[in-house]
Amino acid sequence: MFYICSSKTNTTRMPSISNKAVAMPASPIRKLVPFADAAKKKGTKIYHLNIGQPDIETPASFLNAVRNSDMKIVEYSHSAGNESYRKKLCGYYKEYNITVDPSDIIITCGGSEAIEIAMLTCFNPGDEIIIPEPFYANYNGFSRAADVVVKPIRSFIDSGFALPPIAEFEKAITPKTKGIMICNPGNPTGYLYTKAELEALKEVVKKHDLFLLSDEVYREFCYDGKEYVSVMHLSGIENNVILLDSISKRYSACGARIGAMISRNKEIMNAALKFAQARLSPPSYGQIGAEAALETPRSYFDGVKKEYVSRRDFVIESLNKMPGVFCPKPSGAFYCIAKLPIDNADKFCQWLLEEFSHDQKTVMLAPATGFYSTPGAGINEVRIAYVLNLEDLKNAMVCLEKALQVYPGKTN
Amino acid sequence: MFYICSSKTNTTRMPSISNKAVAMPASPIRKLVPFADAAKKKGTKIYHLNIGQPDIETPASFLNAVRNSDMKIVEYSHSAGNESYRKKLCGYYKEYNITVDPSDIIITCGGSEAIEIAMLTCFNPGDEIIIPEPFYANYNGFSRAADVVVKPIRSFIDSGFALPPIAEFEKAITPKTKGIMICNPGNPTGYLYTKAELEALKEVVKKHDLFLLSDEVYREFCYDGKEYVSVMHLSGIENNVILLDSISKRYSACGARIGAMISRNKEIMNAALKFAQARLSPPSYGQIGAEAALETPRSYFDGVKKEYVSRRDFVIESLNKMPGVFCPKPSGAFYCIAKLPIDNADKFCQWLLEEFSHDQKTVMLAPATGFYSTPGAGINEVRIAYVLNLEDLKNAMVCLEKALQVYPGKTN
Repeated sequence: MFYICSSKTNTTRMPSISNKAVAMPASPIRKLVPFADAAKKKGTKIYHLNIGQPDIETPASFLNAVRNSDMKIVEYSHSAGNESYRKKLCGYYKEYNITVDPSDIIITCGGSEAIEIAMLTCFNPGDEIIIPEPFYANYNGFSRAADVVVKPIRSFIDSGFALPPIAEFEKAITPKTKGIMICNPGNPTGYLYTKAELEALKEVVKKHDLFLLSDEVYREFCYDGKEYVSVMHLSGIENNVILLDSISKRYSACGARIGAMISRNKEIMNAALKFAQARLSPPSYGQIGAEAALETPRSYFDGVKKEYVSRRDFVIESLNKMPGVFCPKPSGAFYCIAKLPIDNADKFCQWLLEEFSHDQKTVMLAPATGFYSTPGAGINEVRIAYVLNLEDLKNAMVCLEKALQVYPGKTN
Repeated sequence: MFYICSSKTNTTRMPSISNKAVAMPASPIRKLVPFADAAKKKGTKIYHLNIGQPDIETPASFLNAVRNSDMKIVEYSHSAGNESYRKKLCGYYKEYNITVDPSDIIITCGGSEAIEIAMLTCFNPGDEIIIPEPFYANYNGFSRAADVVVKPIRSFIDSGFALPPIAEFEKAITPKTKGIMICNPGNPTGYLYTKAELEALKEVVKKHDLFLLSDEVYREFCYDGKEYVSVMHLSGIENNVILLDSISKRYSACGARIGAMISRNKEIMNAALKFAQARLSPPSYGQIGAEAALETPRSYFDGVKKEYVSRRDFVIESLNKMPGVFCPKPSGAFYCIAKLPIDNADKFCQWLLEEFSHDQKTVMLAPATGFYSTPGAGINEVRIAYVLNLEDLKNAMVCLEKALQVYPGKTN
């Protein structure tokens, strides 16, 4: 593996690192960074459609609360997060018709830690978790870290990445299956699950008594008047459900590292709190900002949503106009997956950075292969994050169109 | 186990939580909190000597940097932490004669995450790690989370918790032993390892080709002119050594959640970076403060050290004057372990909160049993964190002395 230096070149011996450290996947989104750096050095401007780092400003309420903080000592907070914040968060969830109390919530270091703690709490090494693919690539990493085995079930671009048929879940279930994980609205697909899909999922969860983990960090980003249905709305599986959340996208505050793990199952939360206590507390400044940001006026989100809808509409229309390109229109989040007339998305994305430029500009995309577990899946698909302003998106789409005309590995 | 609610009382079935979630120890330091809350409700003032939350102010450089931050978007940072911070950190370590470059450093969410990532990187489930006990209780939690088996080796109060004889390490080593972990200066003992002790440890590490993890977050707190020797100073085992660090105590900034995992072994750091990438980035505000705090003048630390030395001297002298009490004088950190003339430290600490008060005041201590892995060890020992001002410490020592006179379970 290219990222491992041989220990033979070192002057001393060393013990071998863990099997999971070897097997741990490198970030598929970040592995093209060296090629991007080289392109920048050559003077090429790069439009970054490869990462979910929004260009939207963090709400002033968040930033001002941190700036005006008068702490003299930056102390540990409660291991579950500040109680004042958790109390107010209950009001936030209530607006989405999700009824929880502060003891159902543990504030975490980003949504990432919520996933980590949930996995440690629920799964033994070797347990299996079913995840519809393509899925957020880091689920692979968290599963590796917890020695949990991911069993992907394929969803397809032609149906816009709708939930795979329940029969596919039934086929994948073994005696080792202990949970199902979804992301809704979806990263990387932008797909928003319908009530009917979630009710169908509920029946499988109930029948086989599984944990249902749901990453719903994009709930603010649902479009076209479509309904956001949370797993917390499903009745009869309250003890099976864990909600994984984050303020990173909601308030464009990815660096604050504030997320939450939420469940009405007291046994889960009592156990999760022990993991939370071991790592002491979530970040203090992020909590101050996040608590203040709960006062963010609805108009902020209306503005953000309007902006993303116009970006989405422009990108989807542009993509589908290009010969041989197909991109379903997503109803949520700020990603889409497009099928391109290319031989290999990893090669294409690297070529865009290494060999292509149009007017000294190029575009950086995420090869979709990194979001699939099934080898070979997504070979001609890319994920596009529409996190740039319309002007930049226009230039990026021109680059992509020109690139597809001259790419040596094009297939039509 | 008292902390698990029975799932039978719930309306729906639920899958069972993981074995490690059940086995995960509750925080021994935080488990007395409900008794403290009840005492406070009765109007009793509690002197908190139970936790390592310093009362020292965070340096102004840190607080001002956060307050003056002009971020408009709180973005993800580099997964390994801001490069500007890592570069300057190299200068900080250089002052301690530790030569590292920025690629040897991953900034983590507190020292806790540094331990977590180091364990995931080095150890397979079932691997054994030797740790001299008493040790920082959360090492147990991190080991459970990573399915690593802790093999404690006993150190003793009579020798001030010096490193156990190397023969004891040799006896404890099995084919599954993959590492040794130490804390220097020590929490909970305050013991500062000598150069000779670390050189002896080096030979064992070399002979059996083990990882050596060293938690050195208290390096600023070494007293009486004694020398701080880091595992990073040991030559010939550069590829075996991992330094675990944190700014929590250094800058009295526990809530910032900024730590670091450091190794000169590129294979370790490449693998660790994959775990770091999966969780995206460390907290942005904490990094801003921590980078600015590197400018903290030496006089700040001189003042802090002087303060801790006078607190330590007062506490140790007071303790050793009490009949039947013995407390070795530590050379580092801000903890000591005292042997008391009592039947059971857990009972005693709870009794202090539930049944005792002197002039409406009492003291909260950490039973040392939580810092030992060996059952029954530390039964008559408590950890005292001298993190309060001298006036409060005086009152606390009066409380303790009076309490020992009337405690029903006293043994002399």
